[in-house]
Amino acid sequence: MILRIDRLQTELPPPSTPDPAGAGVVQELLGGKFGEMSTFMNYTFQSFNFRARQEARPFYDLVANIAAEEFAHIELVSTAINTMLTGAGEKGALPDPDDVQNPQQFIAGGAATLVQDSNGKPWNGDYVTSTGDLVEDLTHNFFLETGARNNKLKVYEMVEHPAARALTGYLLCRGGVHQVAYARAVEKLTGADLTKMFPSPRIPTAKIPECQPHIQRGEHLKLYRFSPKDYQEIAALWNGPHPETGEDLVVEAGPPEGALFNDLPAQPAVFAPDYEPEEIAEIAKRLRQQAGLPDEPTGEINLPQDGIVGKIADKVTPG
Amino acid sequence: MILRIDRLQTELPPPSTPDPAGAGVVQELLGGKFGEMSTFMNYTFQSFNFRARQEARPFYDLVANIAAEEFAHIELVSTAINTMLTGAGEKGALPDPDDVQNPQQFIAGGAATLVQDSNGKPWNGDYVTSTGDLVEDLTHNFFLETGARNNKLKVYEMVEHPAARALTGYLLCRGGVHQVAYARAVEKLTGADLTKMFPSPRIPTAKIPECQPHIQRGEHLKLYRFSPKDYQEIAALWNGPHPETGEDLVVEAGPPEGALFNDLPAQPAVFAPDYEPEEIAEIAKRLRQQAGLPDEPTGEINLPQDGIVGKIADKVTPG
Amino acid sequence: MILRIDRLQTELPPPSTPDPAGAGVVQELLGGKFGEMSTFMNYTFQSFNFRARQEARPFYDLVANIAAEEFAHIELVSTAINTMLTGAGEKGALPDPDDVQNPQQFIAGGAATLVQDSNGKPWNGDYVTSTGDLVEDLTHNFFLETGARNNKLKVYEMVEHPAARALTGYLLCRGGVHQVAYARAVEKLTGADLTKMFPSPRIPTAKIPECQPHIQRGEHLKLYRFSPKDYQEIAALWNGPHPETGEDLVVEAGPPEGALFNDLPAQPAVFAPDYEPEEIAEIAKRLRQQAGLPDEPTGEINLPQDGIVGKIADKVTPG
Amino acid sequence: MILRIDRLQTELPPPSTPDPAGAGVVQELLGGKFGEMSTFMNYTFQSFNFRARQEARPFYDLVANIAAEEFAHIELVSTAINTMLTGAGEKGALPDPDDVQNPQQFIAGGAATLVQDSNGKPWNGDYVTSTGDLVEDLTHNFFLETGARNNKLKVYEMVEHPAARALTGYLLCRGGVHQVAYARAVEKLTGADLTKMFPSPRIPTAKIPECQPHIQRGEHLKLYRFSPKDYQEIAALWNGPHPETGEDLVVEAGPPEGALFNDLPAQPAVFAPDYEPEEIAEIAKRLRQQAGLPDEPTGEINLPQDGIVGKIADKVTPG
Amino acid sequence: MILRIDRLQTELPPPSTPDPAGAGVVQELLGGKFGEMSTFMNYTFQSFNFRARQEARPFYDLVANIAAEEFAHIELVSTAINTMLTGAGEKGALPDPDDVQNPQQFIAGGAATLVQDSNGKPWNGDYVTSTGDLVEDLTHNFFLETGARNNKLKVYEMVEHPAARALTGYLLCRGGVHQVAYARAVEKLTGADLTKMFPSPRIPTAKIPECQPHIQRGEHLKLYRFSPKDYQEIAALWNGPHPETGEDLVVEAGPPEGALFNDLPAQPAVFAPDYEPEEIAEIAKRLRQQAGLPDEPTGEINLPQDGIVGKIADKVTPG
Amino acid sequence: MILRIDRLQTELPPPSTPDPAGAGVVQELLGGKFGEMSTFMNYTFQSFNFRARQEARPFYDLVANIAAEEFAHIELVSTAINTMLTGAGEKGALPDPDDVQNPQQFIAGGAATLVQDSNGKPWNGDYVTSTGDLVEDLTHNFFLETGARNNKLKVYEMVEHPAARALTGYLLCRGGVHQVAYARAVEKLTGADLTKMFPSPRIPTAKIPECQPHIQRGEHLKLYRFSPKDYQEIAALWNGPHPETGEDLVVEAGPPEGALFNDLPAQPAVFAPDYEPEEIAEIAKRLRQQAGLPDEPTGEINLPQDGIVGKIADKVTPG
Repeated sequence: MILRIDRLQTELPPPSTPDPAGAGVVQELLGGKFGEMSTFMNYTFQSFNFRARQEARPFYDLVANIAAEEFAHIELVSTAINTMLTGAGEKGALPDPDDVQNPQQFIAGGAATLVQDSNGKPWNGDYVTSTGDLVEDLTHNFFLETGARNNKLKVYEMVEHPAARALTGYLLCRGGVHQVAYARAVEKLTGADLTKMFPSPRIPTAKIPECQPHIQRGEHLKLYRFSPKDYQEIAALWNGPHPETGEDLVVEAGPPEGALFNDLPAQPAVFAPDYEPEEIAEIAKRLRQQAGLPDEPTGEINLPQDGIVGKIADKVTPG
Repeated sequence: MILRIDRLQTELPPPSTPDPAGAGVVQELLGGKFGEMSTFMNYTFQSFNFRARQEARPFYDLVANIAAEEFAHIELVSTAINTMLTGAGEKGALPDPDDVQNPQQFIAGGAATLVQDSNGKPWNGDYVTSTGDLVEDLTHNFFLETGARNNKLKVYEMVEHPAARALTGYLLCRGGVHQVAYARAVEKLTGADLTKMFPSPRIPTAKIPECQPHIQRGEHLKLYRFSPKDYQEIAALWNGPHPETGEDLVVEAGPPEGALFNDLPAQPAVFAPDYEPEEIAEIAKRLRQQAGLPDEPTGEINLPQDGIVGKIADKVTPG
Repeated sequence: MILRIDRLQTELPPPSTPDPAGAGVVQELLGGKFGEMSTFMNYTFQSFNFRARQEARPFYDLVANIAAEEFAHIELVSTAINTMLTGAGEKGALPDPDDVQNPQQFIAGGAATLVQDSNGKPWNGDYVTSTGDLVEDLTHNFFLETGARNNKLKVYEMVEHPAARALTGYLLCRGGVHQVAYARAVEKLTGADLTKMFPSPRIPTAKIPECQPHIQRGEHLKLYRFSPKDYQEIAALWNGPHPETGEDLVVEAGPPEGALFNDLPAQPAVFAPDYEPEEIAEIAKRLRQQAGLPDEPTGEINLPQDGIVGKIADKVTPG
Repeated sequence: MILRIDRLQTELPPPSTPDPAGAGVVQELLGGKFGEMSTFMNYTFQSFNFRARQEARPFYDLVANIAAEEFAHIELVSTAINTMLTGAGEKGALPDPDDVQNPQQFIAGGAATLVQDSNGKPWNGDYVTSTGDLVEDLTHNFFLETGARNNKLKVYEMVEHPAARALTGYLLCRGGVHQVAYARAVEKLTGADLTKMFPSPRIPTAKIPECQPHIQRGEHLKLYRFSPKDYQEIAALWNGPHPETGEDLVVEAGPPEGALFNDLPAQPAVFAPDYEPEEIAEIAKRLRQQAGLPDEPTGEINLPQDGIVGKIADKVTPG
Repeated sequence: MILRIDRLQTELPPPSTPDPAGAGVVQELLGGKFGEMSTFMNYTFQSFNFRARQEARPFYDLVANIAAEEFAHIELVSTAINTMLTGAGEKGALPDPDDVQNPQQFIAGGAATLVQDSNGKPWNGDYVTSTGDLVEDLTHNFFLETGARNNKLKVYEMVEHPAARALTGYLLCRGGVHQVAYARAVEKLTGADLTKMFPSPRIPTAKIPECQPHIQRGEHLKLYRFSPKDYQEIAALWNGPHPETGEDLVVEAGPPEGALFNDLPAQPAVFAPDYEPEEIAEIAKRLRQQAGLPDEPTGEINLPQDGIVGKIADKVTPG
Repeated sequence: MILRIDRLQTELPPPSTPDPAGAGVVQELLGGKFGEMSTFMNYTFQSFNFRARQEARPFYDLVANIAAEEFAHIELVSTAINTMLTGAGEKGALPDPDDVQNPQQFIAGGAATLVQDSNGKPWNGDYVTSTGDLVEDLTHNFFLETGARNNKLKVYEMVEHPAARALTGYLLCRGGVHQVAYARAVEKLTGADLTKMFPSPRIPTAKIPECQPHIQRGEHLKLYRFSPKDYQEIAALWNGPHPETGEDLVVEAGPPEGALFNDLPAQPAVFAPDYEPEEIAEIAKRLRQQAGLPDEPTGEINLPQDGIVGKIADKVTPG
């Protein structure tokens, strides 16, 4: 079972100039073979399928716990894509077909993320490798994280939108943690020292400006325990020095504090949402009242500041 | 973000006679168009893609919160399949190719669940409908739950293995809750009363013996709030009488108590796991010691009772 | 545009002993690369995409008109499959998972046809070749019909159920007509004489007992004009002697008389239909009355004879 | 069985400036999950798979009859795409790879429609839901039409080419009829009033300029009976007031008058057709003569007016 | 470029009792994610895409040369499947639909291999990982070979047909060579010693009886140079002691001697071939004569011994 | 088995201005339904699956031998794509997402070929038709080559990059040979004269400037025997006059001389390769020394000339 927390794992910038072509490319980090759907689902199903797990607790706990963090990553990638698409779904601002990488982001979605890769192909379940062979699954996971790091670095280079850069900066840092974690798990199980390949690709995370704030907070050293009380034995694997920096690896009990979502504004040209937001708000208010809840919405969120969205539309509408 | 709890949402029986053909059919409830991967991913991405959500909190909270429960359901289906396959992956007990529905459960997996449907096709991201149009998404979700209930009833009838029956008995009860929840959300948003279709298909859940224990505990009335403190506004939608029984609908703060996993035994003929469990146990013990953790594994789990697995092998190995 | 006629192109037998494994194999003739969905959709889209068609009328009319007949063929294959599955979806009669080729016929469908091939893969639009190059499209169509004939002959040999044999007997006869038609079109356009390959595969249709009644009615010689008044110029291509028998080829104005459908009985274990048939009948009757229609249903159909379905259930329910 | 009529269901404009990027987007209305292939094939296979249909005639007739109209819609969408591509396949006018959404429209096709969606993925048979459960199938169909309306509105906004606008204007009107039809069928079967959601999305069709001519002819009120004499019982469901306008719903016996096709000109750079049109014309003429048909082509069609195509090429060829 | 040699890489037994169910399972080794199509195509495209290859010759030569061996492996797997299916496509001997794993082996194929996995899904190009990053590609290749070894061991256990056992016995031996080769390449490039994981899965190849003859001939130590004169620098990587046995690794100039094909007999029920073999033989003879070639066929092959095929048919045809 | 030769079948130009959009279109010739993967794999599996082949030697030898040439063609297409992408993966030169047809060429690949078509869909095994029916397989192959010629002509027209033109110029010439070869095989087997359709499409290869040098060397007349000594009986089919030119068809013993590869330079922005080329070179040198190989790389290759790559970067980097 899971519990869900209504916060992002890290802060993402609010919408600015829309970038539908870039948003099409970022889909690779969501639904590509090496995207976050793949990491999330591989570790999730490996944990479900883990046999004789009690005696193998450190390994089971590691896989199960990293799976939990990956949920936060599909959430981050989706939010970044949605941020990049904001403003491209407003009346009069729909992009020309020529300028769109993935038309279904507008037609199937409401200026929103799809469960697809950067070529518009859906993620599929055969991207999951879950053999039950612990040596093979851990080696696979190390390889998957290496491929994911490679893909993030390329998307970083290819897409300059601030939301994409904030996203890849953070994910490179956290993905690096998982890469180290699986390398150490393989080493402790078999003796094979995969850390000799680091950094792979051979660009130290620390060289990427958008990674710096996270490194300075030590995000590259922490394995969060994403559970109220389970998965304690990750500490049996996540310890000792970081293979690149020599700093001590640390297990954090509980998730990071994270950040509030930006409440991305409605995109009326693509009916996101439909009915009109005001109409829904009124219905919602009435429902709250009938249920004895407060008059005002109860969740915490960053509301869009006046004028931002208007400004976006200005930019993209020819004068 | 999510937190993960190392418990199943409900109890499933331990392994008994293996049923690989049945386990192939149950895959439909995992990776079929109307399976639990579809409910989980539809609601998850709808929540990620929800625009102007603050003013629409009751609806956002409902979708986001049901998404969280669906994780527990992919976990339940996978565990049931793995239970049904236990004993079919032991040395000398591998089933004949003739008797297997889905050979990849043994070749790609370790006598384990795949992210596929009952025809061996992988689940794919185009099963997700996330339009951003609230009326359309909620109608879709109601329809998806109705299709899911239909599929569960058919698998119930087709597969008699105790794990499959325990699974479908529970899921029918919980799926019914979600069907009601989306029907009410549509009604409160638009006025259209979908509960007039209930029960759909027209077999009351209460008639199914395996649902009875759950109904007696009121599982058909409760919407769990799967969050430490978020998603409070589900209470604005989940209230009033149950459309079939007239009993009061109830929001429960927090998840159900759930049940411990059965530690499914190793299946050596399919290398699940590899190395040998004893070898892994020894390594794990050493790692725990080095990390200052207790000598014995720390997680709670139902260990296999002596003799059960041996007896299974006896049954399936010709004398 | 099309007009639809509520009759089958030929008579099929009523349900007898159910044959779910055979019904899985017959799916190849519906959704396989060389199945009737492929012939229907290839010719349909070639006709839509036909440029400069007025000057090429004989060829356009031929392709457009054969497309129309292929609709009747997807209808025939589906009806045969549904006939073979009848009795396998009754309460207490659901087949064991071991005995089913395609579990989705029962779970996704109501003991019914899917748009899939014999391996459970969905038909897809890339099976359509529509290049706009008339020489290439006609050659393709000849090749497609040859492959389709090959597939029908194999299904004939592999599946002995009376509905499958009636189906393949008729389709071999009609598919043979289309094979000749495209061969002649290629010859008249390019001079290449493809009829030298006939029969391909080298089994004369006349040797197949189930084809005999149709041959005796001259079905192997007639090209029906499936239109109230269009597609007159098929006569420019469909004339002269049959390449195998030397008999005269004939254009028939209008469709064949065809046959009434058997009203396949409800399969309650798979909710086909749901609500109960009696309940639906009552609602239907009331709706007819309110609309000033006759009290009794107005369509013509073969109703199931008493006792047939009961007898089926007897056979398949262990005593 | 079907009969085919060599006319379009409504008039589309002749080719003007080619718009390959837009034509790539319009593919969504053909081969997307909510495109016309989906509506056509869902209703077609539901009608094939309809059990105990005689007693349920009003519902069977409705589904079977709407299926027939959908054929005309795949024809309309294809024709609109082909119109938009005309001029982009002439010698010296092939678009730059940069300016093409779907290169296969030119390489696999002859500047023509593919059975794909706007991301270039083929339509596939798993987009068909045909459960045999009447309540579920009708609810599905209502939902499918709602999604289709949503998609058409978005394509309307995104693509400004006159052929795309004429297409979506007409389809919105007719799709609205089907949306109402299934809503009423659900209501009459179950009592659930789905018309309370209308219009969904919340833009009245009447507000769209390109819908106006059709509305003024009452196209939003008519259910055509696409059959020489069958499917009479649609009148039991299609009656009473239109849920949005209050006007009387009307059943028309027979199809609409429709319009002649424009004979889209050859596109020599993509061999559509090959041989040269003149060469084919000569062969066709000879074949007509040999068969005793008139010297001139017999079908009715709008021939391209002199100079139009030449002008197109002028526009797109840099001076 | 390649040159082709009309010999198998190792001897396979002639047809005996047909085993269509087993032949369906063996497809995994051809078209599965870890099958031989994957190894062949991964290394082939990595070699095509290898940038700056001259300075990286030992690595380029290794990948390019192993690619060449993998062609021989898709050939071996296909031949084994075809051997297992021989006798199941004879007149009167076609298997019941119940007894077939993959009906398309008979309907699409002529009792023959398909480019599919054991669930009947086609191999696809997204199984290829070719990043251009040498560290990542080599790690991938090591992982792919490990997964391939895992799959071969499972198929060995699941399928007892002599052709399947001869196949897996040989491939385990040769796949082991490739696993070692990529492990050493990774080690020599990065220092990470992957051989510490060996054997993976933890069953030494030497324990498998069908591997013994090959081990005794030293097949586990040899890397063949599959080229008239290129790829010399594999010697820079393939040297030193075997990580499991300590014996010296050896580069062989040129391919192994291999074995003659068995000329698998015609399967007339599935038109393999069509025309009749005798008819084709006569045509072939005439063509040889006209071209001045010898009267008798010139290739070397093992011809079926009299009576073998007849005996097969006897076995499988009920008396 | 195969032997591999480290040469291209014909010369391709070195990298010049990168053309990522064009490179996306050329993918159709690699992974499209009518691309070189399809020709390679169709003939390869037909040769594996060829039953009773000894008596049918001329036909078996033809199919098996052409299969061998097709390997050289997937190599040529991949090399052309990689050439066109060179310069687009350098630091500071990555193309804008707007200018890319297939983002995965950069993210999944290292500015390199994927096993996909021009819409980014992976090639899949169901593009292979291998029925075992010799008449059908040969007819299919003729049709496949005709479609391939059609596709090459369109790519020729659509993509002007010198590497694309050199590629299509050569492939048109060689594909024409295969088209003739299968036409003659059909004719000699069945009597049907397919050469009457030639040229198809109706543009003589000789009219294409880039084909001229190859025609002048007689490449349109030669069938190479891609084997050290097998496949002699192709001479029984490949003889007599060329159907278009009347010149004598010739069998060449052995492959063409071919050309050296250009060593395409590293593309550091996409880690092709990673580590840095210099680092790899140093490791390679050491490995050569340890193995007693020459100090310098031993393979023959065209090294990039100084300044070329630098100039490319200049062109694409804004000043």
